[in-house]
Amino acid sequence: DAWAGRRPEPRRPSGLTEQVVATFDHAPDPRTGRLLADLVRHLHHFVTANDVTEDEWRHAIDFLTRTGQISSATRQEFVLLSDVLGVSSMVDQLTNSRTPDTTPSAVLGPFYVEGPPEMAQGADISGGLHGTPLWADIRITDLDGAPVPGAVVDVWQSNEDGFYDVQLPDLDGPVLRARLRGDADGRLRFWSILPSEYPIPVDGPVGRLLEAAGRHEYRAPHLHFMITAPGFQRLVTQLFVAGGAYLDSDAVFGVKEALVVDYVPRNGPAPDGRRVDGEWRSLEFTFRLAGHRPAVHTEE
Amino acid sequence: DAWAGRRPEPRRPSGLTEQVVATFDHAPDPRTGRLLADLVRHLHHFVTANDVTEDEWRHAIDFLTRTGQISSATRQEFVLLSDVLGVSSMVDQLTNSRTPDTTPSAVLGPFYVEGPPEMAQGADISGGLHGTPLWADIRITDLDGAPVPGAVVDVWQSNEDGFYDVQLPDLDGPVLRARLRGDADGRLRFWSILPSEYPIPVDGPVGRLLEAAGRHEYRAPHLHFMITAPGFQRLVTQLFVAGGAYLDSDAVFGVKEALVVDYVPRNGPAPDGRRVDGEWRSLEFTFRLAGHRPAVHTEE
Ligand SMILES: [Cu+2]
Ligand SMILES: [Fe+3]
Ligand SMILES: [Fe+3]
Repeated sequence: DAWAGRRPEPRRPSGLTEQVVATFDHAPDPRTGRLLADLVRHLHHFVTANDVTEDEWRHAIDFLTRTGQISSATRQEFVLLSDVLGVSSMVDQLTNSRTPDTTPSAVLGPFYVEGPPEMAQGADISGGLHGTPLWADIRITDLDGAPVPGAVVDVWQSNEDGFYDVQLPDLDGPVLRARLRGDADGRLRFWSILPSEYPIPVDGPVGRLLEAAGRHEYRAPHLHFMITAPGFQRLVTQLFVAGGAYLDSDAVFGVKEALVVDYVPRNGPAPDGRRVDGEWRSLEFTFRLAGHRPAVHTEE
Repeated sequence: DAWAGRRPEPRRPSGLTEQVVATFDHAPDPRTGRLLADLVRHLHHFVTANDVTEDEWRHAIDFLTRTGQISSATRQEFVLLSDVLGVSSMVDQLTNSRTPDTTPSAVLGPFYVEGPPEMAQGADISGGLHGTPLWADIRITDLDGAPVPGAVVDVWQSNEDGFYDVQLPDLDGPVLRARLRGDADGRLRFWSILPSEYPIPVDGPVGRLLEAAGRHEYRAPHLHFMITAPGFQRLVTQLFVAGGAYLDSDAVFGVKEALVVDYVPRNGPAPDGRRVDGEWRSLEFTFRLAGHRPAVHTEE
Protein backbone atom coordinates (compact mmCIF):
# COMPACT_ATOMS: atom_id res chain seq x y z
CA ASP A 1 0.00 0.00 0.00
CA ALA A 2 0.98 3.65 -0.17
CA TRP A 3 2.54 3.67 3.26
CA ALA A 4 4.89 0.79 2.61
CA GLY A 5 5.91 2.42 -0.65
CA ARG A 6 7.57 5.24 1.24
CA ARG A 7 10.29 2.98 2.58
CA PRO A 8 12.94 1.42 0.40
CA GLU A 9 12.22 -2.24 -0.41
CA PRO A 10 13.53 -4.56 2.27
CA ARG A 11 16.44 -6.74 1.22
CA ARG A 12 15.56 -10.36 0.66
CA PRO A 13 14.55 -12.37 3.76
CA SER A 14 17.61 -12.74 5.94
CA GLY A 15 16.89 -16.13 7.45
CA LEU A 16 16.75 -14.44 10.84
CA THR A 17 13.43 -16.04 11.77
CA GLU A 18 14.64 -19.57 11.15
CA GLN A 19 17.90 -18.77 12.94
CA VAL A 20 15.96 -17.74 16.05
CA VAL A 21 13.50 -20.63 15.77
CA ALA A 22 16.41 -23.11 15.68
CA THR A 23 17.61 -21.92 19.09
CA PHE A 24 14.54 -23.55 20.64
CA ASP A 25 15.27 -26.98 19.15
CA HIS A 26 16.82 -28.32 22.32
CA ALA A 27 14.52 -26.94 24.98
CA PRO A 28 14.45 -29.36 27.93
CA ASP A 29 10.65 -29.44 27.75
CA PRO A 30 9.59 -30.00 24.11
CA ARG A 31 6.20 -28.29 24.56
CA THR A 32 7.95 -25.14 25.82
CA GLY A 33 10.32 -25.24 22.86
CA ARG A 34 7.46 -25.56 20.38
CA LEU A 35 5.50 -22.73 21.96
CA LEU A 36 8.49 -20.37 21.97
CA ALA A 37 9.44 -21.28 18.39
CA ASP A 38 5.92 -20.68 17.13
CA LEU A 39 5.63 -17.46 19.11
CA VAL A 40 8.78 -16.23 17.38
CA ARG A 41 7.36 -17.19 13.97
CA HIS A 42 4.17 -15.22 14.62
CA LEU A 43 5.95 -12.21 16.10
CA HIS A 44 8.43 -12.01 13.22
CA HIS A 45 5.64 -12.48 10.70
CA PHE A 46 3.63 -9.70 12.33
CA VAL A 47 6.66 -7.38 12.35
CA THR A 48 7.64 -8.00 8.73
CA ALA A 49 4.12 -8.16 7.23
CA ASN A 50 3.34 -4.80 8.83
CA ASP A 51 6.79 -3.31 8.28
CA VAL A 52 6.84 -2.25 11.94
CA THR A 53 8.99 0.83 12.49
CA GLU A 54 11.45 1.51 15.28
CA ASP A 55 9.10 4.15 16.69
CA GLU A 56 6.27 1.64 16.81
CA TRP A 57 8.55 -0.97 18.39
CA ARG A 58 9.64 1.54 21.04
CA HIS A 59 6.01 2.41 21.69
CA ALA A 60 5.20 -1.29 22.17
CA ILE A 61 8.13 -1.75 24.60
CA ASP A 62 6.97 1.25 26.57
CA PHE A 63 3.36 0.07 26.54
CA LEU A 64 4.26 -3.39 27.85
CA THR A 65 6.52 -1.93 30.52
CA ARG A 66 3.80 0.37 31.81
CA THR A 67 1.31 -2.50 31.72
CA GLY A 68 3.56 -4.52 34.02
CA GLN A 69 4.34 -1.64 36.30
CA ILE A 70 0.74 -0.62 36.98
CA SER A 71 -0.12 -4.20 37.95
CA SER A 72 -0.32 -5.02 41.66
CA ALA A 73 -1.90 -7.50 44.07
CA THR A 74 -5.33 -6.06 43.27
CA ARG A 75 -4.88 -4.95 39.65
CA GLN A 76 -3.80 -7.13 36.77
CA GLU A 77 -3.37 -4.97 33.68
CA PHE A 78 -1.99 -7.82 31.53
CA VAL A 79 -5.13 -9.89 32.23
CA LEU A 80 -7.12 -6.83 31.22
CA LEU A 81 -5.04 -6.47 28.04
CA SER A 82 -5.59 -10.14 27.24
CA ASP A 83 -9.31 -9.60 27.87
CA VAL A 84 -9.77 -6.60 25.55
CA LEU A 85 -7.85 -8.40 22.77
CA GLY A 86 -10.18 -11.41 23.08
CA VAL A 87 -7.23 -13.65 23.97
CA SER A 88 -8.67 -14.61 27.37
CA SER A 89 -11.97 -15.49 25.75
CA MET A 90 -10.18 -17.60 23.14
CA VAL A 91 -8.19 -19.53 25.77
CA ASP A 92 -11.41 -19.97 27.70
CA GLN A 93 -13.18 -21.40 24.63
CA LEU A 94 -10.34 -23.84 23.99
CA THR A 95 -10.25 -24.96 27.60
CA ASN A 96 -13.81 -25.01 28.80
CA SER A 97 -16.40 -24.92 26.07
CA ARG A 98 -15.94 -28.23 24.34
CA THR A 99 -18.87 -30.11 25.81
CA PRO A 100 -22.10 -28.60 24.49
CA ASP A 101 -24.14 -29.94 27.43
CA THR A 102 -22.35 -28.09 30.21
CA THR A 103 -22.97 -24.50 31.19
CA PRO A 104 -20.60 -22.40 29.05
CA SER A 105 -17.69 -20.79 30.79
CA ALA A 106 -16.61 -17.16 30.61
CA VAL A 107 -13.38 -15.33 31.37
CA LEU A 108 -12.18 -14.95 34.96
CA GLY A 109 -11.67 -11.21 34.52
CA PRO A 110 -9.23 -9.06 36.47
CA PHE A 111 -11.24 -8.72 39.69
CA TYR A 112 -11.19 -12.19 41.16
CA VAL A 113 -9.41 -12.25 44.53
CA GLU A 114 -8.20 -15.57 45.97
CA GLY A 115 -9.81 -16.64 49.24
CA PRO A 116 -13.01 -14.60 49.41
CA PRO A 117 -14.83 -14.45 52.78
CA GLU A 118 -16.83 -17.59 53.60
CA MET A 119 -20.55 -16.96 54.01
CA ALA A 120 -23.52 -19.14 54.91
CA GLN A 121 -26.54 -20.23 52.84
CA GLY A 122 -29.06 -17.41 52.63
CA ALA A 123 -26.51 -14.70 53.52
CA ASP A 124 -26.45 -11.23 52.00
CA ILE A 125 -23.10 -10.68 50.28
CA SER A 126 -23.76 -7.00 49.49
CA GLY A 127 -22.37 -5.75 52.80
CA GLY A 128 -25.34 -3.38 52.99
CA LEU A 129 -24.37 -1.47 49.84
CA HIS A 130 -27.20 0.39 48.12
CA GLY A 131 -28.90 -1.25 45.12
CA THR A 132 -31.87 -3.26 43.88
CA PRO A 133 -32.04 -6.36 46.09
CA LEU A 134 -31.31 -9.58 44.24
CA TRP A 135 -32.39 -13.01 45.41
CA ALA A 136 -30.36 -15.78 43.76
CA ASP A 137 -31.65 -19.35 43.75
CA ILE A 138 -28.98 -21.56 42.17
CA ARG A 139 -28.92 -25.26 41.40
CA ILE A 140 -25.80 -27.24 40.59
CA THR A 141 -26.23 -30.50 38.70
CA ASP A 142 -24.26 -32.99 36.64
CA LEU A 143 -24.92 -33.55 32.94
CA ASP A 144 -27.89 -35.79 33.73
CA GLY A 145 -29.51 -33.18 35.94
CA ALA A 146 -28.66 -35.00 39.18
CA PRO A 147 -27.80 -32.60 42.05
CA VAL A 148 -24.10 -32.09 42.84
CA PRO A 149 -23.82 -31.80 46.63
CA GLY A 150 -21.33 -29.66 48.51
CA ALA A 151 -20.09 -27.44 45.70
CA VAL A 152 -17.86 -24.50 46.63
CA VAL A 153 -19.17 -21.41 44.88
CA ASP A 154 -17.24 -18.16 44.71
CA VAL A 155 -19.38 -15.19 43.66
CA TRP A 156 -18.11 -11.69 42.88
CA GLN A 157 -19.61 -8.61 41.26
CA SER A 158 -19.52 -4.84 40.98
CA ASN A 159 -21.65 -2.49 43.02
CA GLU A 160 -24.53 -0.37 41.73
CA ASP A 161 -22.11 2.24 40.35
CA GLY A 162 -20.02 -0.32 38.51
CA PHE A 163 -17.09 -0.66 40.93
CA TYR A 164 -15.58 -3.75 42.50
CA ASP A 165 -14.55 -3.52 46.15
CA VAL A 166 -10.85 -3.53 45.22
CA GLN A 167 -11.47 -0.31 43.28
CA LEU A 168 -12.98 1.40 46.31
CA PRO A 169 -10.17 2.31 48.74
CA ASP A 170 -12.65 3.60 51.37
CA LEU A 171 -14.23 0.18 51.83
CA ASP A 172 -13.06 -1.76 54.85
CA GLY A 173 -12.51 -5.32 53.60
CA PRO A 174 -14.17 -7.33 50.85
CA VAL A 175 -17.81 -6.86 49.87
CA LEU A 176 -19.83 -8.21 46.95
CA ARG A 177 -17.58 -11.23 46.93
CA ALA A 178 -18.07 -14.41 48.93
CA ARG A 179 -17.35 -18.11 49.11
CA LEU A 180 -20.64 -19.99 49.51
CA ARG A 181 -21.47 -23.69 49.64
CA GLY A 182 -24.19 -25.54 47.80
CA ASP A 183 -26.21 -27.78 50.14
CA ALA A 184 -26.63 -31.56 49.95
CA ASP A 185 -29.26 -31.06 47.21
CA GLY A 186 -26.92 -28.93 45.08
CA ARG A 187 -28.87 -25.82 45.95
CA LEU A 188 -27.55 -22.40 46.94
CA ARG A 189 -29.50 -19.30 47.86
CA PHE A 190 -28.15 -15.88 48.73
CA TRP A 191 -28.94 -12.18 48.64
CA SER A 192 -27.01 -9.52 46.81
CA ILE A 193 -27.80 -6.50 44.65
CA LEU A 194 -28.48 -6.26 40.93
CA PRO A 195 -25.17 -5.85 39.04
CA SER A 196 -24.86 -2.96 36.60
CA GLU A 197 -22.81 -2.37 33.48
CA TYR A 198 -19.40 -0.96 34.30
CA PRO A 199 -16.27 0.41 32.66
CA ILE A 200 -13.13 -1.65 32.90
CA PRO A 201 -10.30 0.41 34.42
CA VAL A 202 -9.16 2.90 31.78
CA ASP A 203 -6.69 4.95 33.81
CA GLY A 204 -3.84 2.71 32.64
CA PRO A 205 -2.21 1.53 29.39
CA VAL A 206 -5.22 -0.60 28.38
CA GLY A 207 -7.36 2.53 28.58
CA ARG A 208 -4.97 4.29 26.17
CA LEU A 209 -5.21 1.29 23.84
CA LEU A 210 -9.03 1.38 23.80
CA GLU A 211 -8.86 5.11 23.10
CA ALA A 212 -6.46 4.54 20.20
CA ALA A 213 -8.81 1.85 18.91
CA GLY A 214 -11.87 4.08 19.19
CA ARG A 215 -13.53 1.47 21.43
CA HIS A 216 -15.76 1.90 24.49
CA GLU A 217 -14.77 0.33 27.80
CA TYR A 218 -18.08 -1.05 29.08
CA ARG A 219 -18.93 -4.53 30.19
CA ALA A 220 -22.49 -5.84 30.06
CA PRO A 221 -23.93 -6.32 33.59
CA HIS A 222 -23.10 -9.73 35.08
CA LEU A 223 -22.43 -11.82 38.17
CA HIS A 224 -19.21 -13.88 38.30
CA PHE A 225 -19.25 -17.52 39.46
CA MET A 226 -16.45 -19.99 40.11
CA ILE A 227 -17.81 -23.42 41.00
CA THR A 228 -15.74 -26.36 42.21
CA ALA A 229 -17.07 -29.72 43.35
CA PRO A 230 -15.25 -33.02 43.96
CA GLY A 231 -15.29 -35.14 40.82
CA PHE A 232 -16.22 -32.27 38.52
CA GLN A 233 -14.37 -29.77 36.37
CA ARG A 234 -14.14 -26.30 37.78
CA LEU A 235 -16.55 -23.91 36.08
CA VAL A 236 -15.67 -20.21 35.82
CA THR A 237 -18.48 -18.24 34.26
CA GLN A 238 -20.68 -15.15 34.31
CA LEU A 239 -24.45 -14.68 34.22
CA PHE A 240 -25.45 -11.64 32.18
CA VAL A 241 -28.59 -9.59 32.81
CA ALA A 242 -31.00 -10.02 29.89
CA GLY A 243 -31.94 -6.60 28.51
CA GLY A 244 -28.82 -5.05 30.02
CA ALA A 245 -26.57 -2.55 28.24
CA TYR A 246 -23.59 -3.51 25.99
CA LEU A 247 -24.66 -7.15 25.59
CA ASP A 248 -23.58 -6.99 21.94
CA SER A 249 -20.35 -5.05 22.42
CA ASP A 250 -18.96 -6.27 25.73
CA ALA A 251 -15.45 -4.77 26.07
CA VAL A 252 -13.88 -8.14 26.94
CA PHE A 253 -15.90 -10.44 24.63
CA GLY A 254 -17.36 -12.39 27.55
CA VAL A 255 -21.03 -12.66 26.50
CA LYS A 256 -22.39 -16.01 25.31
CA GLU A 257 -26.06 -16.44 24.50
CA ALA A 258 -26.59 -19.27 27.00
CA LEU A 259 -25.26 -17.02 29.78
CA VAL A 260 -27.78 -14.21 29.22
CA VAL A 261 -30.40 -14.78 31.91
CA ASP A 262 -33.59 -13.11 33.16
CA TYR A 263 -33.15 -11.30 36.44
CA VAL A 264 -36.93 -11.18 37.02
CA PRO A 265 -38.44 -8.03 38.62
CA ARG A 266 -40.58 -8.85 41.69
CA ASN A 267 -42.54 -7.12 44.40
CA GLY A 268 -43.81 -8.27 47.76
CA PRO A 269 -42.26 -10.66 50.27
CA ALA A 270 -39.18 -12.63 49.27
CA PRO A 271 -38.97 -16.46 49.33
CA ASP A 272 -37.01 -16.47 52.59
CA GLY A 273 -39.53 -14.17 54.29
CA ARG A 274 -37.38 -11.03 54.03
CA ARG A 275 -39.49 -7.88 53.68
CA VAL A 276 -38.30 -5.78 50.78
CA ASP A 277 -39.51 -2.22 50.17
CA GLY A 278 -40.18 -1.82 46.46
CA GLU A 279 -38.82 -3.88 43.60
CA TRP A 280 -36.39 -6.75 43.94
CA ARG A 281 -35.04 -9.19 41.37
CA SER A 282 -35.04 -12.94 41.26
CA LEU A 283 -32.33 -14.96 39.54
CA GLU A 284 -32.91 -18.67 39.07
CA PHE A 285 -30.25 -20.68 37.28
CA THR A 286 -29.00 -24.23 37.01
CA PHE A 287 -25.27 -24.79 36.46
CA ARG A 288 -24.48 -28.08 34.71
CA LEU A 289 -20.97 -29.32 35.50
CA ALA A 290 -18.84 -31.69 33.43
CA GLY A 291 -17.01 -34.62 35.03
CA HIS A 292 -13.24 -34.70 35.19
CA ARG A 293 -11.32 -35.32 32.01
CA PRO A 294 -7.86 -36.84 31.78
CA ALA A 295 -4.86 -34.64 32.43
CA VAL A 296 -4.04 -32.47 29.43
CA HIS A 297 -0.36 -31.81 29.88
CA THR A 298 1.26 -35.17 29.29
CA GLU A 299 3.93 -34.93 26.58
CA GLU A 300 4.66 -37.39 23.72
CA ASP B 1 -0.31 -34.75 17.55
CA ALA B 2 -0.62 -36.96 20.60
CA TRP B 3 -0.84 -34.06 22.98
CA ALA B 4 -3.75 -32.40 21.26
CA GLY B 5 -5.54 -35.74 21.14
CA ARG B 6 -5.92 -35.74 24.90
CA ARG B 7 -8.29 -32.82 24.81
CA PRO B 8 -11.78 -33.06 23.37
CA GLU B 9 -11.99 -31.60 19.86
CA PRO B 10 -12.66 -27.89 19.93
CA ARG B 11 -16.06 -26.84 18.68
CA ARG B 12 -16.08 -25.22 15.29
CA PRO B 13 -14.45 -21.76 15.03
CA SER B 14 -16.60 -19.34 16.96
CA GLY B 15 -16.00 -16.22 14.91
CA LEU B 16 -14.39 -14.66 17.96
CA THR B 17 -11.30 -13.53 16.08
CA GLU B 18 -13.25 -11.65 13.43
CA GLN B 19 -15.49 -10.19 16.13
CA VAL B 20 -12.44 -8.75 17.92
CA VAL B 21 -10.77 -7.62 14.69
CA ALA B 22 -13.91 -5.68 13.73
CA THR B 23 -13.64 -3.56 16.87
CA PHE B 24 -10.55 -1.90 15.37
CA ASP B 25 -12.34 -0.84 12.18
CA HIS B 26 -12.90 2.71 13.35
CA ALA B 27 -9.62 3.51 15.05
CA PRO B 28 -8.96 7.26 14.73
CA ASP B 29 -5.53 6.51 13.26
CA PRO B 30 -5.92 3.86 10.53
CA ARG B 31 -2.34 2.56 10.91
CA THR B 32 -2.97 1.92 14.62
CA GLY B 33 -6.20 0.11 13.78
CA ARG B 34 -4.48 -2.12 11.22
CA LEU B 35 -1.62 -2.96 13.59
CA LEU B 36 -3.96 -3.88 16.44
CA ALA B 37 -6.23 -5.91 14.17
CA ASP B 38 -3.33 -7.86 12.74
CA LEU B 39 -1.81 -8.35 16.20
CA VAL B 40 -5.10 -9.89 17.32
CA ARG B 41 -5.15 -12.19 14.27
CA HIS B 42 -1.62 -13.44 15.03
CA LEU B 43 -2.22 -13.83 18.76
CA HIS B 44 -5.47 -15.73 18.24
CA HIS B 45 -3.86 -17.87 15.58
CA PHE B 46 -0.96 -18.67 17.90
CA VAL B 47 -3.34 -19.55 20.74
CA THR B 48 -5.60 -21.80 18.67
CA ALA B 49 -2.91 -23.47 16.55
CA ASN B 50 -1.04 -24.43 19.72
CA ASP B 51 -4.15 -25.17 21.78
CA VAL B 52 -2.76 -22.98 24.56
CA THR B 53 -4.00 -24.06 27.98
CA GLU B 54 -5.19 -21.88 30.83
CA ASP B 55 -2.08 -22.79 32.82
CA GLU B 56 0.13 -21.67 29.97
CA TRP B 57 -1.87 -18.47 29.59
CA ARG B 58 -1.53 -17.75 33.31
CA HIS B 59 2.20 -18.42 33.07
CA ALA B 60 2.47 -15.93 30.19
CA ILE B 61 0.53 -13.26 32.12
CA ASP B 62 2.79 -13.76 35.11
CA PHE B 63 5.92 -13.69 32.92
CA LEU B 64 4.92 -10.43 31.24
CA THR B 65 4.02 -8.86 34.58
CA ARG B 66 7.38 -9.73 36.11
CA THR B 67 9.14 -8.49 32.98
CA GLY B 68 7.49 -5.09 33.41
CA GLN B 69 8.07 -4.92 37.13
CA ILE B 70 11.81 -5.66 37.03
CA SER B 71 12.31 -2.88 34.48
CA SER B 72 13.62 0.45 35.74
CA ALA B 73 15.48 3.55 34.57
CA THR B 74 18.62 1.45 34.09
CA ARG B 75 17.16 -1.94 33.17
CA GLN B 76 14.78 -2.65 30.30
CA GLU B 77 13.71 -6.28 30.49
CA PHE B 78 11.20 -5.96 27.62
CA VAL B 79 13.97 -4.71 25.31
CA LEU B 80 16.00 -7.71 26.45
CA LEU B 81 13.04 -10.02 25.75
CA SER B 82 12.62 -8.49 22.31
CA ASP B 83 16.37 -8.98 21.77
CA VAL B 84 16.51 -12.69 22.69
CA LEU B 85 13.46 -13.40 20.49
CA GLY B 86 15.18 -11.73 17.53
CA VAL B 87 12.39 -9.16 17.28
CA SER B 88 14.73 -6.21 17.86
CA SER B 89 17.07 -7.49 15.17
CA MET B 90 14.14 -7.92 12.77
CA VAL B 91 12.88 -4.36 13.37
CA ASP B 92 16.46 -3.17 12.94
CA GLN B 93 16.77 -4.97 9.60
CA LEU B 94 13.51 -3.49 8.35
CA THR B 95 14.50 0.00 9.43
CA ASN B 96 18.18 0.32 8.82
CA SER B 97 19.62 -2.30 6.54
CA ARG B 98 18.03 -1.49 3.22
CA THR B 99 20.93 0.25 1.54
CA PRO B 100 23.72 -2.25 0.90
CA ASP B 101 26.36 0.50 0.72
CA THR B 102 25.99 1.82 4.24
CA THR B 103 27.53 0.27 7.34
CA PRO B 104 24.97 -2.24 8.63
CA SER B 105 23.16 -1.38 11.80
CA ALA B 106 22.75 -3.56 14.88
CA VAL B 107 20.35 -3.51 17.80
CA LEU B 108 20.53 -0.77 20.43
CA GLY B 109 20.57 -3.29 23.27
CA PRO B 110 19.37 -2.69 26.82
CA PHE B 111 22.40 -0.76 28.10
CA TYR B 112 22.26 2.50 26.21
CA VAL B 113 21.76 5.44 28.58
CA GLU B 114 20.56 8.79 27.22
CA GLY B 115 22.99 11.69 27.58
CA PRO B 116 26.37 10.03 28.13
CA PRO B 117 29.23 12.25 29.42
CA GLU B 118 30.80 14.46 26.73
CA MET B 119 34.48 13.74 26.16
CA ALA B 120 37.15 15.24 23.90
CA GLN B 121 39.03 13.78 20.91
CA GLY B 122 41.74 11.46 22.12
CA ALA B 123 40.19 10.94 25.56
CA ASP B 124 40.22 7.66 27.44
CA ILE B 125 36.64 6.56 28.13
CA SER B 126 37.62 3.62 30.33
CA GLY B 127 37.69 5.63 33.55
CA GLY B 128 40.91 3.86 34.44
CA LEU B 129 39.29 0.40 34.56
CA HIS B 130 41.63 -2.55 34.10
CA GLY B 131 41.87 -4.17 30.67
CA THR B 132 43.80 -4.43 27.41
CA PRO B 133 44.18 -0.83 26.14
CA LEU B 134 42.31 -0.18 22.93
CA TRP B 135 43.09 2.63 20.51
CA ALA B 136 40.18 3.40 18.20
CA ASP B 137 40.75 5.35 15.00
CA ILE B 138 37.38 5.93 13.38
CA ARG B 139 36.40 7.60 10.13
CA ILE B 140 32.89 8.73 9.25
CA THR B 141 32.07 9.19 5.57
CA ASP B 142 29.12 9.46 3.23
CA LEU B 143 28.36 6.83 0.59
CA ASP B 144 30.99 8.31 -1.75
CA GLY B 145 33.71 8.13 0.89
CA ALA B 146 33.71 11.88 1.53
CA PRO B 147 34.31 12.77 5.19
CA VAL B 148 31.26 13.72 7.28
CA PRO B 149 32.35 16.51 9.62
CA GLY B 150 31.07 17.11 13.14
CA ALA B 151 29.34 13.78 13.81
CA VAL B 152 28.14 13.10 17.33
CA VAL B 153 29.28 9.62 18.32
CA ASP B 154 28.00 7.84 21.41
CA VAL B 155 30.15 4.86 22.40
CA TRP B 156 29.34 2.33 25.13
CA GLN B 157 30.68 -1.05 26.13
CA SER B 158 31.17 -3.54 28.93
CA ASN B 159 34.26 -3.78 31.11
CA GLU B 160 36.82 -6.56 31.06
CA ASP B 161 34.58 -8.80 33.16
CA GLY B 162 31.58 -8.30 30.92
CA PHE B 163 29.64 -5.74 32.96
CA TYR B 164 28.25 -2.37 31.94
CA ASP B 165 28.60 0.48 34.41
CA VAL B 166 24.87 0.41 35.19
CA GLN B 167 25.33 -3.16 36.43
CA LEU B 168 28.06 -2.12 38.85
CA PRO B 169 26.49 -0.33 41.81
CA ASP B 170 29.88 0.51 43.35
CA LEU B 171 30.91 2.69 40.41
CA ASP B 172 30.54 6.41 40.94
CA GLY B 173 28.98 7.70 37.71
CA PRO B 174 29.18 6.50 34.11
CA VAL B 175 32.30 4.83 32.69
CA LEU B 176 32.92 3.05 29.41
CA ARG B 177 30.31 5.27 27.82
CA ALA B 178 30.88 8.68 26.27
CA ARG B 179 29.62 11.20 23.76
CA LEU B 180 32.47 12.10 21.39
CA ARG B 181 32.63 14.31 18.32
CA GLY B 182 34.18 13.56 14.97
CA ASP B 183 36.46 16.37 13.77
CA ALA B 184 36.14 18.46 10.60
CA ASP B 185 37.70 15.59 8.63
CA GLY B 186 35.19 13.02 9.93
CA ARG B 187 37.82 11.46 12.13
CA LEU B 188 37.53 10.37 15.75
CA ARG B 189 40.21 8.84 17.96
CA PHE B 190 39.84 7.68 21.53
CA TRP B 191 41.20 5.22 24.07
CA SER B 192 39.24 2.52 25.82
CA ILE B 193 39.77 -1.14 26.73
CA LEU B 194 39.14 -4.27 24.69
CA PRO B 195 35.53 -5.42 25.15
CA SER B 196 34.92 -9.00 26.20
CA GLU B 197 32.04 -11.41 25.70
CA TYR B 198 29.42 -11.06 28.41
CA PRO B 199 26.21 -12.62 29.65
CA ILE B 200 23.02 -10.64 29.26
CA PRO B 201 21.30 -10.21 32.65
CA VAL B 202 19.76 -13.56 33.57
CA ASP B 203 18.56 -12.80 37.08
CA GLY B 204 15.12 -11.83 35.71
CA PRO B 205 12.29 -13.36 33.65
CA VAL B 206 14.36 -13.37 30.42
CA GLY B 207 16.93 -15.51 32.23
CA ARG B 208 14.19 -18.01 33.09
CA LEU B 209 13.10 -18.03 29.46
CA LEU B 210 16.62 -18.79 28.20
CA GLU B 211 16.87 -21.56 30.78
CA ALA B 212 13.56 -23.04 29.61
CA ALA B 213 14.82 -22.82 26.03
CA GLY B 214 18.13 -24.48 26.87
CA ARG B 215 19.98 -21.46 25.45
CA HIS B 216 23.16 -19.75 26.63
CA GLU B 217 23.14 -16.06 27.52
CA TYR B 218 26.39 -14.79 26.01
CA ARG B 219 26.95 -11.95 23.62
CA ALA B 220 29.95 -11.89 21.32
CA PRO B 221 32.42 -9.11 22.34
CA HIS B 222 31.57 -5.75 20.76
CA LEU B 223 31.66 -1.98 21.03
CA HIS B 224 28.37 -0.05 20.61
CA PHE B 225 28.18 3.06 18.42
CA MET B 226 25.39 5.55 17.82
CA ILE B 227 26.34 8.10 15.18
CA THR B 228 24.34 11.17 14.26
CA ALA B 229 25.35 13.87 11.81
CA PRO B 230 23.33 16.68 10.23
CA GLY B 231 21.90 15.53 6.88
CA PHE B 232 22.47 11.83 7.55
CA GLN B 233 20.45 8.97 8.98
CA ARG B 234 21.34 7.99 12.49
CA LEU B 235 23.39 4.82 12.61
CA VAL B 236 23.14 2.50 15.62
CA THR B 237 25.54 -0.38 15.35
CA GLN B 238 28.13 -2.61 17.00
CA LEU B 239 31.66 -3.62 16.01
CA PHE B 240 32.42 -7.23 16.93
CA VAL B 241 35.89 -8.53 17.76
CA ALA B 242 37.04 -10.94 15.03
CA GLY B 243 38.00 -14.26 16.62
CA GLY B 244 35.91 -13.51 19.71
CA ALA B 245 33.64 -16.00 21.46
CA TYR B 246 29.98 -16.63 20.54
CA LEU B 247 30.18 -14.92 17.15
CA ASP B 248 27.97 -17.67 15.70
CA SER B 249 25.47 -17.90 18.57
CA ASP B 250 25.12 -14.37 19.87
CA ALA B 251 22.27 -14.40 22.41
CA VAL B 252 20.53 -11.40 20.82
CA PHE B 253 21.21 -12.12 17.13
CA GLY B 254 23.22 -8.94 16.67
CA VAL B 255 26.19 -10.23 14.63
CA LYS B 256 26.46 -9.34 10.94
CA GLU B 257 29.49 -10.33 8.92
CA ALA B 258 30.34 -6.77 7.88
CA LEU B 259 30.47 -5.77 11.54
CA VAL B 260 33.09 -8.34 12.56
CA VAL B 261 36.33 -6.37 12.64
CA ASP B 262 39.99 -6.98 13.51
CA TYR B 263 41.04 -5.46 16.81
CA VAL B 264 44.74 -5.73 15.90
CA PRO B 265 47.23 -6.68 18.65
CA ARG B 266 50.12 -4.18 18.90
CA ASN B 267 53.16 -3.49 21.01
CA GLY B 268 55.26 -0.41 21.47
CA PRO B 269 54.30 3.26 21.49
CA ALA B 270 50.78 4.23 20.51
CA PRO B 271 49.95 6.64 17.64
CA ASP B 272 49.26 9.52 20.05
CA GLY B 273 52.58 8.96 21.85
CA ARG B 274 51.06 7.26 24.89
CA ARG B 275 53.44 4.70 26.39
CA VAL B 276 51.71 1.35 26.87
CA ASP B 277 53.25 -1.48 28.89
CA GLY B 278 52.64 -4.71 27.00
CA GLU B 279 50.02 -5.44 24.36
CA TRP B 280 47.42 -3.02 23.20
CA ARG B 281 44.84 -3.27 20.41
CA SER B 282 44.14 -1.08 17.46
CA LEU B 283 40.69 -0.70 15.91
CA GLU B 284 40.43 1.10 12.59
CA PHE B 285 37.01 1.40 11.02
CA THR B 286 35.14 3.58 8.55
CA PHE B 287 31.42 4.14 9.12
CA ARG B 288 29.51 4.93 5.92
CA LEU B 289 26.33 6.88 6.61
CA ALA B 290 23.24 7.12 4.40
CA GLY B 291 21.59 10.43 3.62
CA HIS B 292 18.15 11.25 4.96
CA ARG B 293 15.19 9.49 3.42
CA PRO B 294 11.64 10.85 3.33
CA ALA B 295 9.52 10.57 6.45
CA VAL B 296 8.08 7.09 6.84
CA HIS B 297 4.99 7.72 8.95
CA THR B 298 2.72 9.68 6.63
CA GLU B 299 -0.67 7.97 6.32
CA GLU B 300 -2.81 7.57 3.17
CU1 LIG C 1 0.77 -15.39 12.75
FE1 LIG D 1 -16.93 -8.42 36.15
FE1 LIG E 1 26.47 -4.68 24.47
